[in-house]
Amino acid sequence: MERLNCGTLRREHLDQEVTLKGWVQKRRDLGGLIFIDLRDRSGLVQVVFNPETSGEALQTAENVRSEYVLEVKGVVVARDPQTVNSNLGTGDVEVAAHGLTILNKAKTPPFMIEEQSEVSEDLRLKYRYLDLRRKEMQETFKLRHQTTQSIRNFLNEEEFLDMETPMLTKSTPEGARDYLVPSRVHEGEFYALPQSPQLFKQLLMMSGFEKYYQIARCFRDEDLRADRQPEFTQVDIETSFLSKDEIMTLTERMMKRVMKEVKGLEIETPFLRMPYEEAMERFGSDKPDTRFGLELVNISEDVKDSGFKVFSGAVSSGGQVSAINVQGKSDDFSRKDIDKMTEDVKVYGAKGLAWLKVKDGEFNGPIAKFFSEEETAALKGKLSAEEGDLLLFVADKTSVVQDSLGALRLKLGRRLNLIDESQFNFLWVTDWPLFEYDEEEGRYHAAHHPFTMPEGGDIKQLKRNPEDVHAEAYDIVLNGYELGGGSLRIHQKEIQQEMFEVLGFSQEEANEQFGFLLEALDYGTPPHGGIAFGLDRLVMLLAGRTNLRDTILFPKTASAADPMTNAPGPVDKAQLDELHLQLKLAEQSGSDI
Amino acid sequence: MERLNCGTLRREHLDQEVTLKGWVQKRRDLGGLIFIDLRDRSGLVQVVFNPETSGEALQTAENVRSEYVLEVKGVVVARDPQTVNSNLGTGDVEVAAHGLTILNKAKTPPFMIEEQSEVSEDLRLKYRYLDLRRKEMQETFKLRHQTTQSIRNFLNEEEFLDMETPMLTKSTPEGARDYLVPSRVHEGEFYALPQSPQLFKQLLMMSGFEKYYQIARCFRDEDLRADRQPEFTQVDIETSFLSKDEIMTLTERMMKRVMKEVKGLEIETPFLRMPYEEAMERFGSDKPDTRFGLELVNISEDVKDSGFKVFSGAVSSGGQVSAINVQGKSDDFSRKDIDKMTEDVKVYGAKGLAWLKVKDGEFNGPIAKFFSEEETAALKGKLSAEEGDLLLFVADKTSVVQDSLGALRLKLGRRLNLIDESQFNFLWVTDWPLFEYDEEEGRYHAAHHPFTMPEGGDIKQLKRNPEDVHAEAYDIVLNGYELGGGSLRIHQKEIQQEMFEVLGFSQEEANEQFGFLLEALDYGTPPHGGIAFGLDRLVMLLAGRTNLRDTILFPKTASAADPMTNAPGPVDKAQLDELHLQLKLAEQSGSDI
Repeated sequence: MERLNCGTLRREHLDQEVTLKGWVQKRRDLGGLIFIDLRDRSGLVQVVFNPETSGEALQTAENVRSEYVLEVKGVVVARDPQTVNSNLGTGDVEVAAHGLTILNKAKTPPFMIEEQSEVSEDLRLKYRYLDLRRKEMQETFKLRHQTTQSIRNFLNEEEFLDMETPMLTKSTPEGARDYLVPSRVHEGEFYALPQSPQLFKQLLMMSGFEKYYQIARCFRDEDLRADRQPEFTQVDIETSFLSKDEIMTLTERMMKRVMKEVKGLEIETPFLRMPYEEAMERFGSDKPDTRFGLELVNISEDVKDSGFKVFSGAVSSGGQVSAINVQGKSDDFSRKDIDKMTEDVKVYGAKGLAWLKVKDGEFNGPIAKFFSEEETAALKGKLSAEEGDLLLFVADKTSVVQDSLGALRLKLGRRLNLIDESQFNFLWVTDWPLFEYDEEEGRYHAAHHPFTMPEGGDIKQLKRNPEDVHAEAYDIVLNGYELGGGSLRIHQKEIQQEMFEVLGFSQEEANEQFGFLLEALDYGTPPHGGIAFGLDRLVMLLAGRTNLRDTILFPKTASAADPMTNAPGPVDKAQLDELHLQLKLAEQSGSDI
Repeated sequence: MERLNCGTLRREHLDQEVTLKGWVQKRRDLGGLIFIDLRDRSGLVQVVFNPETSGEALQTAENVRSEYVLEVKGVVVARDPQTVNSNLGTGDVEVAAHGLTILNKAKTPPFMIEEQSEVSEDLRLKYRYLDLRRKEMQETFKLRHQTTQSIRNFLNEEEFLDMETPMLTKSTPEGARDYLVPSRVHEGEFYALPQSPQLFKQLLMMSGFEKYYQIARCFRDEDLRADRQPEFTQVDIETSFLSKDEIMTLTERMMKRVMKEVKGLEIETPFLRMPYEEAMERFGSDKPDTRFGLELVNISEDVKDSGFKVFSGAVSSGGQVSAINVQGKSDDFSRKDIDKMTEDVKVYGAKGLAWLKVKDGEFNGPIAKFFSEEETAALKGKLSAEEGDLLLFVADKTSVVQDSLGALRLKLGRRLNLIDESQFNFLWVTDWPLFEYDEEEGRYHAAHHPFTMPEGGDIKQLKRNPEDVHAEAYDIVLNGYELGGGSLRIHQKEIQQEMFEVLGFSQEEANEQFGFLLEALDYGTPPHGGIAFGLDRLVMLLAGRTNLRDTILFPKTASAADPMTNAPGPVDKAQLDELHLQLKLAEQSGSDI
């Protein structure tokens, strides 16, 4: 007999004998009958116990409470027309029980297992096994499963090999902070958990495997935010001999497949490709959410000689002035609203937020008087300013203008309900700078990582003007989130050496940390490149959720702890002795634990 | 144009224009022509450069050496009949090159990239990226890919969900030694890397997911042997509501699928099921290699009153006497051979190895005189002893008899070439004891793990006679290797508590370490069970290899080090400070690093 599950019963199963195993969602007693909503992975069905046909099962059912685990034997019957529940897939039928075994009992859970939970996240994490019984959690992890399967099936068909790289690796100071693992055998030495399989996947290209993928666990010991976890999962892809365009096209085909299989949506390819500079200029973000307008417009040229010194001064000192036109909404924003927005942009270093409203064809507001007729006309043209519009300006150095208006744009988009949540806007951001200059440390950092190919492999430019060199890199953005990023990698030893030099490594340091890579580059390294995606974030977006923790079965809290198992925890002194370690706690001498 | 790869070219591609990218396997210059064997992931093809049609490419080819990375443009042409190479898939054709680009150069590698490598494993691991270019390594990792895909496809079709459990977990003293990860945020506390996802997969059953799988990395900080690695990969499966038989049947169907898809072999199911006691008695092993005979025969009953005191004494003091009949081989074993085997069994604690040869219908050998006519007849019958047979005996306590003869049996099987290497003999070993008694520590250990269901869930027996309780456990054995093991798990709190008590946990200790599990058992835990397989070992057996390291891309040496990256390595004092740790080295005071 086919195994029928609770949520799968339909009219077509009428009169079938079934054995169901599941949890009690709810029990109701009504006129001598007992109704139990029985839940398993597939959903809910109503089970009825009645004095005529249920026999002993009715007595047993009297002892049943929420979350008990039951085995029910019964027959699928039609519900009375007036009790049909059209909100439930199984709502046309119920199971008339004639057998009941209590497989396990349950205490009253600390919170109800229901669809929308109002419970604190702390409690949900402490009783994660109960939280995961909720329908929306069950569905999220089914979707996560479908997503990984869809990705795997695509890559398998494309002849990629699923390959496992090590988790106990070597610590490298470049990048984020490593999680360390003390070695017992090698006194005073440590492994590091991988931040990504970057170097190993490059070594696999040097090994001639040509097409690699892995759904890999990665680790970063950083301070956590809502969208960060100490361990996260990455869809990691590397190929030999493919061009940047070929890798991007492959990625697009993969996303198209995932969107089709997981969401039933046909998405358009190729995705829009936007240079980094354009993204910053138009959206104030390197991961623009293109589901709505409110674009930033650079008006520096139009106000560079303005009598309004805040504007002209910003331009003359090398900065810029940009504006957002909030079309038709001037009446929706009070003085108080604008003050609030001013506070918001100050977080990003802006000294203030200038504004104008268009009323009776005129600019209106405290700074209107500073602009000449010509300037006013130019601004109206540039900003397409029309009656009822609200114009918001920031004048400052370029990074402050872009960051503050970029953030303001997102807030406005949400406040004005401009975002179509059903839309999935994929976008490539390309032409990244290869380096970021760290003013504090007075040195360059790799904008992506130190193995990224400089544009055109131009070693001369790399030596001469590192700050002007672009990277052969591409980020994939979905609805304002960075979904992943990739690049062509350096496959020539001289370029890799030059790269380390620009990053401030001495030759000795470079050899100490990356000697094996430099050596490997000597033995016939193919041109190669790849991409990596955050799987947790992709699932979050596909599931329409906003909390990354809801896409991870057993996530950590913001302090990197697990309230369920109480990890991390203390360990025995004997364990530490074996690892040649002792604790050095703030309040202690460090000589003892 | 379809992308054609080196190893895929055939007569059907004659006259096609191709662009190949790959590595130089070999270059030969012959009569003004240059021949290059070009290698990519798909295999090898011969490329020819000649003065007539190759143009500049011929000059470029003169600079080419082994392991250079090339892009070759050319036309597929037929080889002269006398130069056809039938050992090569592409041996009917060659590529007449008219274009050549050197994509990257290569120094002379430290060893040849060839099929059978005689190079030391240390050198192979240091230059792993070169070692992995060898054909047999490429094929092993393709087979590994196929194996995981086959397993995944099967489990996906069976509606299992692929789910990721945490890697940063809590340390538990039960089981093998944990790898620890110090916490930066929680002073003096540590995560542990998982030895298996055991508790998390049980929690997922408590979460109602019903069918879980994961191909999971696991970690054990144990001293390494040839078939152990600090990190290894486990195919991890858990189900709710299934019986032991249903789980075993599911596993058999999975293995049938893998054998069919990966090896093209139809294997018979159900697999033989053998109780643990029978396996020990007949094969002297809990993971019998059933590809050959040489079974152990217990002759205690027949010799318990024998005049040979070594035999009768062993029986009367509670031990046993068992024998192996090496049929028809008595002439193949000299006195010296037998002395050597005697040394071999002594390793397992046996005091000696008794022997008899059957010659002219009589027992022959130093102990023959001790046996009465009746005893001789009984032994001949029990051991099916015939002319020319060699009989080998060990008399001792049961564990010594089984261990020593079990090991001897394996040695004899190999020496006498009795093992059919093309055979895949799967076998279930069932009816395991739940506990092992540790005489040194004077306490019970869990034979599998502390979450294994006692047979029949019998809590009374558990309290009264723990040593007699069998486990609801099953190991799967392939050709003498333990491939995996599983069990039904405890789903009732009282039994789990009793289990911890038998294992010597105080109630406080049980709550401290497993409180979350005990609490979870209160809230409606379904009956559940599962199985876990060593993927590395499965791949090793499928690939016909004997070294586990050959199935892992970047394995560790016997001292848990990676000779390529030099992991583990020292870290900065600043990193240790952040982790509230200091080193405590053998030769130092521990106050400094």
